[in-house]
Amino acid sequence: MLVKVLRLGHRVGRDKRATTHLFLAARAFGAVEGFLSGETDSNLTNSVNSLSNSWGGDFKVSYVKNWRKLVREFNGKIVHLTMYGIPVQNCVKKIGAGSDLLVIVGGAKVPSDVYELADYNVSITTQPHSEIAALSVFLDKLFDGKELLLKFPNAQKKIVPKKNGKKVLKYSEK
Amino acid sequence: MLVKVLRLGHRVGRDKRATTHLFLAARAFGAVEGFLSGETDSNLTNSVNSLSNSWGGDFKVSYVKNWRKLVREFNGKIVHLTMYGIPVQNCVKKIGAGSDLLVIVGGAKVPSDVYELADYNVSITTQPHSEIAALSVFLDKLFDGKELLLKFPNAQKKIVPKKNGKKVLKYSEK
Repeated sequence: MLVKVLRLGHRVGRDKRATTHLFLAARAFGAVEGFLSGETDSNLTNSVNSLSNSWGGDFKVSYVKNWRKLVREFNGKIVHLTMYGIPVQNCVKKIGAGSDLLVIVGGAKVPSDVYELADYNVSITTQPHSEIAALSVFLDKLFDGKELLLKFPNAQKKIVPKKNGKKVLKYSEK
Repeated sequence: MLVKVLRLGHRVGRDKRATTHLFLAARAFGAVEGFLSGETDSNLTNSVNSLSNSWGGDFKVSYVKNWRKLVREFNGKIVHLTMYGIPVQNCVKKIGAGSDLLVIVGGAKVPSDVYELADYNVSITTQPHSEIAALSVFLDKLFDGKELLLKFPNAQKKIVPKKNGKKVLKYSEK
């Protein structure tokens, strides 16, 4: 099962950091690709892709102009994370059984047809918090914690876990 | 076991949204109190406290001038979330057994003595992502998913989970 993440309604000024962190979390917790919608932001996509290159693995993010087309043509299930949806603990097993997933994460105002386009509207608590938290906890539950053991091949740097302090291995490019 | 969250190195201009979302995630995933360190930001603390009031429960956040004093005098264990630490899956059971926790979440530059002051330096993956993701996944693992069932008493509004669309109950203040 491959998981891709679509971020709706990005605004360059206001959302730069939140959207960057969202895609980094998508990558770290096992998604394979990200799509940015809303305002174009090549600084953001370049910066996520460059970081992904340094830290390894194949995650990449690109801008999509027509996100509805992406959603309609996606070969798999559509999951929309929203505080109004069905609790994740009641549906994540079913969602994780089988086909690839496109996970939609809303911005400030989510167009109402997203709820219709989604196969699953899923809530990660019914409390207000953060799309980054929602996505990370969703992916962690979807992959049942196994994403914490993911390897990111061809990394130029790698952290070696330590009780105290920092240890980073750096590899020169070949 | 009560869990409190200390955010270090807040910068008013740059971190407003990230820090707000961090505290909202702390609340949603079961922490009982937040402490803001770095630059003072009464807009932020007021806004989190006001939201917490509307959505119920007792979570509150306040500014601390001397975070080292808070850490030293905390009656419980200190957990520092850092990508350089011990993998969460290897230590969360031990951390969750017993005393109250103060979870430290770093900002842009974490003073090096934080690593020493902490009883546990804990990583949520060794990849770069987001302090909001790290905190949420940590709390979810600490509470073993049970925080998803938390009730927030005296809420002025409540979401009723729906397959499709939105349902919010509003209660007038008494």
